[in-house]
Amino acid sequence: MTLAVRYTAARTLDTAPVDTSPPGPGEVELAPAYVGICGTDLHIFHGDMDARVSAPAVLGHEMSGRIVRVGPDVEGWRPGDAVTVMPLRWDGTCPACRAGHRHICGKLDFIGIDSPGAMQQRWTVPAATLVRLPTSLRLDRAALVEPTAVAVHDVGRAGVRDGERVVVVGGGPVGVLIALVARAAGAEVRVVEPSPYRRLLAEELGLSTWDPAADDMPALLRRWTGDAGADVAFEVSGAAGGVATAVEVLGVRGRLCLVAIHPRPREVDLHRFFWRELTLVGARLYDRADFERAVALVADGTVPADRLISKVVPLAEAPAAFRALEGGGDVMKILVDCADGAQGTTEVRGAAV
Amino acid sequence: MTLAVRYTAARTLDTAPVDTSPPGPGEVELAPAYVGICGTDLHIFHGDMDARVSAPAVLGHEMSGRIVRVGPDVEGWRPGDAVTVMPLRWDGTCPACRAGHRHICGKLDFIGIDSPGAMQQRWTVPAATLVRLPTSLRLDRAALVEPTAVAVHDVGRAGVRDGERVVVVGGGPVGVLIALVARAAGAEVRVVEPSPYRRLLAEELGLSTWDPAADDMPALLRRWTGDAGADVAFEVSGAAGGVATAVEVLGVRGRLCLVAIHPRPREVDLHRFFWRELTLVGARLYDRADFERAVALVADGTVPADRLISKVVPLAEAPAAFRALEGGGDVMKILVDCADGAQGTTEVRGAAV
Repeated sequence: MTLAVRYTAARTLDTAPVDTSPPGPGEVELAPAYVGICGTDLHIFHGDMDARVSAPAVLGHEMSGRIVRVGPDVEGWRPGDAVTVMPLRWDGTCPACRAGHRHICGKLDFIGIDSPGAMQQRWTVPAATLVRLPTSLRLDRAALVEPTAVAVHDVGRAGVRDGERVVVVGGGPVGVLIALVARAAGAEVRVVEPSPYRRLLAEELGLSTWDPAADDMPALLRRWTGDAGADVAFEVSGAAGGVATAVEVLGVRGRLCLVAIHPRPREVDLHRFFWRELTLVGARLYDRADFERAVALVADGTVPADRLISKVVPLAEAPAAFRALEGGGDVMKILVDCADGAQGTTEVRGAAV
Repeated sequence: MTLAVRYTAARTLDTAPVDTSPPGPGEVELAPAYVGICGTDLHIFHGDMDARVSAPAVLGHEMSGRIVRVGPDVEGWRPGDAVTVMPLRWDGTCPACRAGHRHICGKLDFIGIDSPGAMQQRWTVPAATLVRLPTSLRLDRAALVEPTAVAVHDVGRAGVRDGERVVVVGGGPVGVLIALVARAAGAEVRVVEPSPYRRLLAEELGLSTWDPAADDMPALLRRWTGDAGADVAFEVSGAAGGVATAVEVLGVRGRLCLVAIHPRPREVDLHRFFWRELTLVGARLYDRADFERAVALVADGTVPADRLISKVVPLAEAPAAFRALEGGGDVMKILVDCADGAQGTTEVRGAAV
């Protein structure tokens, strides 16, 4: 048995003992150290993904930890190894897999959504999902590798090049990570974000920000790019207005990378796509190369993961943290400390949730 | 003076004498032979482009003809040369031009919309716009070079490769030309078109067609591609339903090339773009390489231009042809014979307009 954070029904989480299975052939048993709470976890918590998630469900897919036990037929891994998990299982036979795009397999098992996740004290996963962490990398920071891999994938899909001007619409964790990764690729970046807390955090990381509610963005864009417009925009807000902004800022042949989930169709100015020969590219998840690049970016401090961690809560407090996140507030990334079953919270950045 | 087809007000065309200017430095005077009536010409006729078009305006930009007079400082051209015109003038200094995308110059002069067009007996244009026609190519067929250049550009923007499965949504002149050019690139093509007349014409050209009103397109798609979906879709219909169809048929990493003009924003299933990592690319006009490729495709019969010409009308009958086209009907491309000022029409395919 292991203590786990479980989604049981809309807006209802608990912590409860769950069965663990010993690692079978090709599997490893991990002791998760830190697990980040992701926007997708919040969608599940809200009940928006009940068609896909079978309650009770153990959540969590942004994790770091150590190997506890190694199953039969696993080579190259030993107990004590520090790892993160690329939480994807593909069928290998569908058209996406055959075309080399296994991360968007038609029958993808996303571990932590479609099968049990990492918010528990023991977690058994296929050894093929493991990604090694350098010993120098603190495990709390390493929990940011998964969202960083998302950002690496997005920046790659958009084809960001040295010297390009990039607008990131939405300054939550993924938006800020995209901005940092794009900057590392040589881009000049502006982050569009309404929350003063998130703008301040981005500014502290050396990123320039625009406030869509107060700033005259067309004037700022002209001052920045002349009449050229931006080369790349990332839509990370999930809002209708975010789509419009991302289209409007782009110059001729600009590329819009669609990162956010828009459950319902959105009105899009297709005439602008025609007139300026714009490109829209969808970007989802990551592949192993993205994950390994993300480990390197977090490990060398290009992505200062510690600055994005607002708070670390013990496993027993995870349900309360979800409820607080639901209410919004000044917060970036919250980690669940799976080794700490105690009551109480550890303030990392003094943010109120 | 020269006789010209003029747009004077919404739903009003006339034929009237207009001034001609002798060719200045770098210019040539042409005798247009045939000028196609384009969808854009119909938009102008409907009054939809009054903000851009200064009435009275001479229409026409799909043309063939011969050089009559050559202005000073023009080299390489002689009276009698058979030519078509790439009807674009760019400023050469805007961000699009500096980035090498002169065809979408921010201050583009599209000759035939922004300045006088080809539906007249004499037409003076910059020599830089001329594209040479082979002597073997009949001038009526050569009037299809301009829309073929659009199709070449679109197929290039979509990056159609040998063996790919391509769905063209909309079987008017540009849709059929895209289908023919994509087929020449090695693609398997399906044309989605509600008009029985246009479907029959496409079938006669060896293209397979789907009727969106009567066919079970998801079933036809599965039979054709298994569960893979199409590699590329072209949206050439301009209809909201056409956008939806073009998105729905695409498989993982599919590319949607947006060709049609959608004056108002359209609802787009952005979640599908995210989930399948689709790409949308806008495509507008053409460059010189597209035009020269189009000349070759029309000249060698890859594009059987004669099969797309529904009717040829004399200059004096052009206003009546516009009114008939406005009413729809079984028609593909109508050419205006600028050398024929007489009353009456020449039936080419027996189509009623």
